[in-house]
Amino acid sequence: MIVEGVLMAENIIKVTLDVDELPKTWYNILPDLPEPLPAALHPATKEPLRPEEWEALFPKGLVRQELSEETDIRIPDEVREALIRIGRPTPLYRAKRLEDALKTPARIYYKREDVSPAGSHKPNTAIAQAYFNYSEGIEHLTTETGAGQWGSALSAAASYFGMKCTVFMVRSSYDSKPYRKYVMKLFGADVIPSPSDTTEYGRCMLKKDPGCSGSLGIAISEAIEIAMKSERTKYSLGSVLNHVMLHQTVIGLETKKQLEKIGEKPDKLIACVGGGSNFAGFTFPFIRDKMKGKNDIRFIAVEPKSVPSLTGVAEGTSRYEYDFGDTAGMTPLLKMHTLGHDFIPETIHAGGLRYHGMAPTVSLLYDHGIIDAEAIGQEDTFTASRLFTRTEGIIPAPESSHAIASAISHALECKKTGDPGVIVFNLSGHGLLDLQNYANIFSL
Amino acid sequence: MIVEGVLMAENIIKVTLDVDELPKTWYNILPDLPEPLPAALHPATKEPLRPEEWEALFPKGLVRQELSEETDIRIPDEVREALIRIGRPTPLYRAKRLEDALKTPARIYYKREDVSPAGSHKPNTAIAQAYFNYSEGIEHLTTETGAGQWGSALSAAASYFGMKCTVFMVRSSYDSKPYRKYVMKLFGADVIPSPSDTTEYGRCMLKKDPGCSGSLGIAISEAIEIAMKSERTKYSLGSVLNHVMLHQTVIGLETKKQLEKIGEKPDKLIACVGGGSNFAGFTFPFIRDKMKGKNDIRFIAVEPKSVPSLTGVAEGTSRYEYDFGDTAGMTPLLKMHTLGHDFIPETIHAGGLRYHGMAPTVSLLYDHGIIDAEAIGQEDTFTASRLFTRTEGIIPAPESSHAIASAISHALECKKTGDPGVIVFNLSGHGLLDLQNYANIFSL
Repeated sequence: MIVEGVLMAENIIKVTLDVDELPKTWYNILPDLPEPLPAALHPATKEPLRPEEWEALFPKGLVRQELSEETDIRIPDEVREALIRIGRPTPLYRAKRLEDALKTPARIYYKREDVSPAGSHKPNTAIAQAYFNYSEGIEHLTTETGAGQWGSALSAAASYFGMKCTVFMVRSSYDSKPYRKYVMKLFGADVIPSPSDTTEYGRCMLKKDPGCSGSLGIAISEAIEIAMKSERTKYSLGSVLNHVMLHQTVIGLETKKQLEKIGEKPDKLIACVGGGSNFAGFTFPFIRDKMKGKNDIRFIAVEPKSVPSLTGVAEGTSRYEYDFGDTAGMTPLLKMHTLGHDFIPETIHAGGLRYHGMAPTVSLLYDHGIIDAEAIGQEDTFTASRLFTRTEGIIPAPESSHAIASAISHALECKKTGDPGVIVFNLSGHGLLDLQNYANIFSL
Repeated sequence: MIVEGVLMAENIIKVTLDVDELPKTWYNILPDLPEPLPAALHPATKEPLRPEEWEALFPKGLVRQELSEETDIRIPDEVREALIRIGRPTPLYRAKRLEDALKTPARIYYKREDVSPAGSHKPNTAIAQAYFNYSEGIEHLTTETGAGQWGSALSAAASYFGMKCTVFMVRSSYDSKPYRKYVMKLFGADVIPSPSDTTEYGRCMLKKDPGCSGSLGIAISEAIEIAMKSERTKYSLGSVLNHVMLHQTVIGLETKKQLEKIGEKPDKLIACVGGGSNFAGFTFPFIRDKMKGKNDIRFIAVEPKSVPSLTGVAEGTSRYEYDFGDTAGMTPLLKMHTLGHDFIPETIHAGGLRYHGMAPTVSLLYDHGIIDAEAIGQEDTFTASRLFTRTEGIIPAPESSHAIASAISHALECKKTGDPGVIVFNLSGHGLLDLQNYANIFSL
């Protein structure tokens, strides 16, 4: 309902921010953690990794962020400009039509990270990573991609700063998701199905199993191998590491401002987790306040039942321990919730949530009981997608559907108790490049 | 460059509008035309179509708009709310990186109609049409779609108002563009490849040619046949008619406000034309001012060389005369620029620009020399797409690439003359569902 052209506060549809309200700093949670984050260890020596060892893979600017003890880190102007170009600040929406369909007294909001040209939150860090590499003279970035969202984002960011980009794409995705491959190639990236014969590790995997359909862990190993070979080439990771979480905090910083603008105090913040970056970016700025006693929000990380890196702790399928980020054991060892670096996930449709590990920062918060986790089965996520599409008019990414499914179940809980709770979730991406998955599930 | 967090006026990146700056009225150009628009004629009697005859196909609310003599028509609150839900007001961007790549002194801006969940400008009218049908008790909408953008938009809009939707999709698109079909089906629409055995006309076409790959004209005939059979079913058209142009004027009304905010006076406004609706919506509010001597803008409609409904007049391939909107001759006769209602266009990638006719309002303005037209070959549009993708970071729809190609050629003209002109084009949609076309063209 619009009264004389002005939206009534209780009938908010869309909360926008001006361009100059884009955050000027990122929030680094490291100094605010309840205990120091266990150091990453060298894969061979098992000694704490020194900054100069990190620099074999990443540029100095990102290594500084990875280990920083400052809470507020300035976003360079060039990065802010690029963030504006990809659509930031992004809007916050009230899911009024979803609420009506559920007949819930809860108020549901969602942050729209689907509006970037790559269709997800991934460009937030892709741009920052490409910039810090570019500003140190790096000419070539390598990375891996599963579902293809990260590969698309980094390809676009590399193109933005005039750099070359090589993406190792898990072979099963490469074959089944041609559209993602086309996006990367349109941005000028080399896209190589992994395992490939381009790397020693890839050749070794192919020798063992010529029909190997690949995994994120294998693709990471291949991307790292290429990056190690040249001084002007570095590796980029789309999740897990501290600097990636840092870059994603623009999501939560904007959401905070938007909720303050309309005078809403959220009860629950919900996001899906694969490596943890959209969850971290969305929640960390609120967790900062919670640790100061300024709010009492429940933070819920939602993962697929078949990849229970957080919720699997109860059943012993997952452990909070040091593990490698890749399959070959080339990455530093990180203390994190992990299903084991040789874990081969089911071929679920939410390809972006199939990673065996979890960001060390998210893991530590979970271990301390500061955040909660839920696991949701694939069928429930697709039912949630369909309802969201029909009510809110946006086809969500299969990954984001995990957050939607959880938000729906919490809203239905409010209905039982009569509680007009405020639920906010992060819509991490749209599903326009995942339509084949929907077609398969719904037999369209 | 961002100085102390505030964007310098000369370095604008993105111009946004608040939710309450969404236009409250549409602009109807009919009363402002240099001569009255020639009346639509009954297909059988060739007499001017009476309002009650229009109502066989369309609801009263839309027929009133089709024939209205008011310049400013109030947008119902329900429609404004739905427009906000699909992302309006949309941002205006400065194409600074494209300018730099071209080394042009011109300033180039583009209006982002790609940000709607359907990925194009089509929802602007789909929502309005669905609303006026819904408010008169209509339960079922039929339509046709070529490239699939209109079908997606109407499916989503019908779903928004709880209505059934049947889309006749040109068979060649149905087979080659499965993603578009999936979008429509996710919104609950029935999608039928045309010609089909669902209608008499379809059966007749299939009898003549069982392998017929279809055309927009045939699909329109099928959709109309179904709509004529039931009182609770009406037909929806995604372009050409006056009320469709009217609904699209939110694009130009917003763009005007945005340019005024940053103190820019455009020299050239550019948009692609198929049926004419994104061009009309973008330019009509500025043409209104030009006719009052308030600006001296050049308005450029860009069409494919292979579908020269405006530019073909010079060579006699197109004529400004009464013609049918469909192949079977079931629609009213409209005075328009037409290649003939039996025109079978080449299978170009910009499927949305393959229509044989042109909106009567756009045609009249062209006939009076108030707007200009250009034809661009397919290869040039793809070269333009690629440059736009690499510089601005957005993969444009093949249709919108016609506007981009024209904007680029005008910017290069400015470079020759040293003229710092202001060029604004309408980015009518993104190309994420057209990636197969790009893959084919660029052999990705």
